[in-house]
Amino acid sequence: MPPRVAAIAGIGYTKYTRSTQASLAGLALEASLNAVEDAGMSIRDIDGLVCYHQNDSVLVRDVSTSLGIKELRWWSDILAGGTFNCAVIAQAAMAIESGLANNVVVYRALKGRSGKRMGRYRASLADGVHQFMTPFGFSTPAEIFGMTCRRHMHEYGTTREQLGRVAVTERLHASLNDRAVMRQALTMEEYLAGRIIADPYTLFDCCQETDGACAVVLTSSERAQSAPHGPVFILGAVHGGGSVPRVPFDGWPDLSISAFPRLATELFERARIAPSDVDVALLYDAFTFEVIQQIEDFGFCEPGEGGPFVEDGNIALTGRLPVNPHGGLLSEAYIHGLNHVIEAVQQLRSEAGSRQVRGAEVALVTGFGFCAGSAMLLGGASAAP
Amino acid sequence: MPPRVAAIAGIGYTKYTRSTQASLAGLALEASLNAVEDAGMSIRDIDGLVCYHQNDSVLVRDVSTSLGIKELRWWSDILAGGTFNCAVIAQAAMAIESGLANNVVVYRALKGRSGKRMGRYRASLADGVHQFMTPFGFSTPAEIFGMTCRRHMHEYGTTREQLGRVAVTERLHASLNDRAVMRQALTMEEYLAGRIIADPYTLFDCCQETDGACAVVLTSSERAQSAPHGPVFILGAVHGGGSVPRVPFDGWPDLSISAFPRLATELFERARIAPSDVDVALLYDAFTFEVIQQIEDFGFCEPGEGGPFVEDGNIALTGRLPVNPHGGLLSEAYIHGLNHVIEAVQQLRSEAGSRQVRGAEVALVTGFGFCAGSAMLLGGASAAP
Repeated sequence: MPPRVAAIAGIGYTKYTRSTQASLAGLALEASLNAVEDAGMSIRDIDGLVCYHQNDSVLVRDVSTSLGIKELRWWSDILAGGTFNCAVIAQAAMAIESGLANNVVVYRALKGRSGKRMGRYRASLADGVHQFMTPFGFSTPAEIFGMTCRRHMHEYGTTREQLGRVAVTERLHASLNDRAVMRQALTMEEYLAGRIIADPYTLFDCCQETDGACAVVLTSSERAQSAPHGPVFILGAVHGGGSVPRVPFDGWPDLSISAFPRLATELFERARIAPSDVDVALLYDAFTFEVIQQIEDFGFCEPGEGGPFVEDGNIALTGRLPVNPHGGLLSEAYIHGLNHVIEAVQQLRSEAGSRQVRGAEVALVTGFGFCAGSAMLLGGASAAP
Repeated sequence: MPPRVAAIAGIGYTKYTRSTQASLAGLALEASLNAVEDAGMSIRDIDGLVCYHQNDSVLVRDVSTSLGIKELRWWSDILAGGTFNCAVIAQAAMAIESGLANNVVVYRALKGRSGKRMGRYRASLADGVHQFMTPFGFSTPAEIFGMTCRRHMHEYGTTREQLGRVAVTERLHASLNDRAVMRQALTMEEYLAGRIIADPYTLFDCCQETDGACAVVLTSSERAQSAPHGPVFILGAVHGGGSVPRVPFDGWPDLSISAFPRLATELFERARIAPSDVDVALLYDAFTFEVIQQIEDFGFCEPGEGGPFVEDGNIALTGRLPVNPHGGLLSEAYIHGLNHVIEAVQQLRSEAGSRQVRGAEVALVTGFGFCAGSAMLLGGASAAP
């Protein structure tokens, strides 16, 4: 996809909570309407709609009908997880590039805490490729991803204190974010005292479960120029993995997530910029260690040096690479990574208030799941084509 | 999407049956491998994979892993029905156009007879928009679509004998097709004696339920030129609907399926051809009447004249508009409409044997579901850009 072929013109979200009285449809509609309004559009302008979910959300058909969209020209209900937070934006951009749609709403609604809880064992974890893993204790995400972390600790001496720096830093960021679910201070002592979830992961290494919804309006770069809050351009997007041999635990010596190093090279080439151009990184943080891993995968430091990189304070708001100013999945909320896109847009529009990264013009956003990942680079108004 | 930006280089399918011993994964793999071989490619060439299903199939992740694909660059598990048989091809074409993938396998595998049967009432028919319909007797597809047929009969005098002509003609076509599940002759008397399913639909108005799989390999139009069996170009594709107000039963006076008349205009414009250029039509025939309706919707005759059009023999192999030479969903098999794409390709490659439509150069393929539709125009080697 050529850089800057599409742009984000609007964002919307609901309150993030641990238990909502709203229906899934209600959450999706609220976020979508907010995004359309933020884009300075009306429902009549929307001709594309796409979501990703794990049979835990509301279908495009129902959202479209309830929004009063008379007819869509492009849409998809995609069965996917955190892998797709950027892939879904790329798909919407493709549809716009291909002329199949003009203005697309991307949404993700879930009741991840009060409804279907993803962190728990589910019957579906005995299906397909999972049938070969679950008997060996690889069933929940924490069990699967924890193994990579342990290997990294063994090979490079990565410490629990370094993991803790991710948790503590993101919580500090969340304290500056009104919509974050977990804003109370987290000390290193509290982190280290967290109960075990799946060794080496303890309570504060693991992301939250959340009820809520996010939505994003995509349009052509040309139309986005007149968006009331300014355009955020898609400088490039990649999507990779999809086969199980890429999961971390059998990938040694390559511990990278879903081929991210190769994808990172492709992403920066497509966007025609370098890692040093990134002002703020919204890294998918289902677990603390994966932040360290991605810092290595995307070339912000050498393999094995992610732990010290974090320890040295580089991921703080004022650091070399501010990571997850909103608090991330760990402390803001778990809207399956679409909340990372929301935050990237707010940073690039300089709307992030006390958590604003000064002069943020380029943001990296990532997402990954069981065996795949997607990522994108976004640019603010100064990136206009 | 510009015409001829992508093409179909290969097709594959399994045996179609009413009860298979194969697993869903086995079906998907067999069809996919056949398609890749037919395209003159190897698994190493495949970097895109996409399927559509209703939680009744096997995920891309499992198929990709089992095929030995090391890494995908683009994929999607799309939750959808017959609506998507052409939309999924359009999505793969988009991915190729955008440079996100080079060679994409599209598959659909289901055990529609021995596994999850779509024609029956399911708990999901009480969810979402269905909750407002099911209490009134609109739950199964036959109940929903039957009402449109009844209205058409009332308004235009469409007769059961005209519906019967669709069933009898398609069965005659199927008798020339080795892979058709239902090849025994069907007489008008037998048709008229069929037991009631959902008035006015009787047994032979309704499509089959089938176990099996189909797969299609898409690539760039340029690469497809060297496909061993020749290229089949995508001349244009459309996708529309998606909101429930478009379902037929509350659309009077417009009885059309999923805005097909408007989509048809857009489709022919995109492809820069006219309905009279269509040599063979693969119309989604979940029910007999919907064939008549689509003949009207796509401009092959005036509204209300579809019944007489069929009665006059126009949809026979040697007629003005040969429809479903393979026997369609009614008599060949129900692979959710991807078998229509297979047949279109075989017709355009002149590989259809005794059911070949002479000189077929342009094919129309359609698909629809509860509240949406997709359609595309395909062109044989003579349509090369």
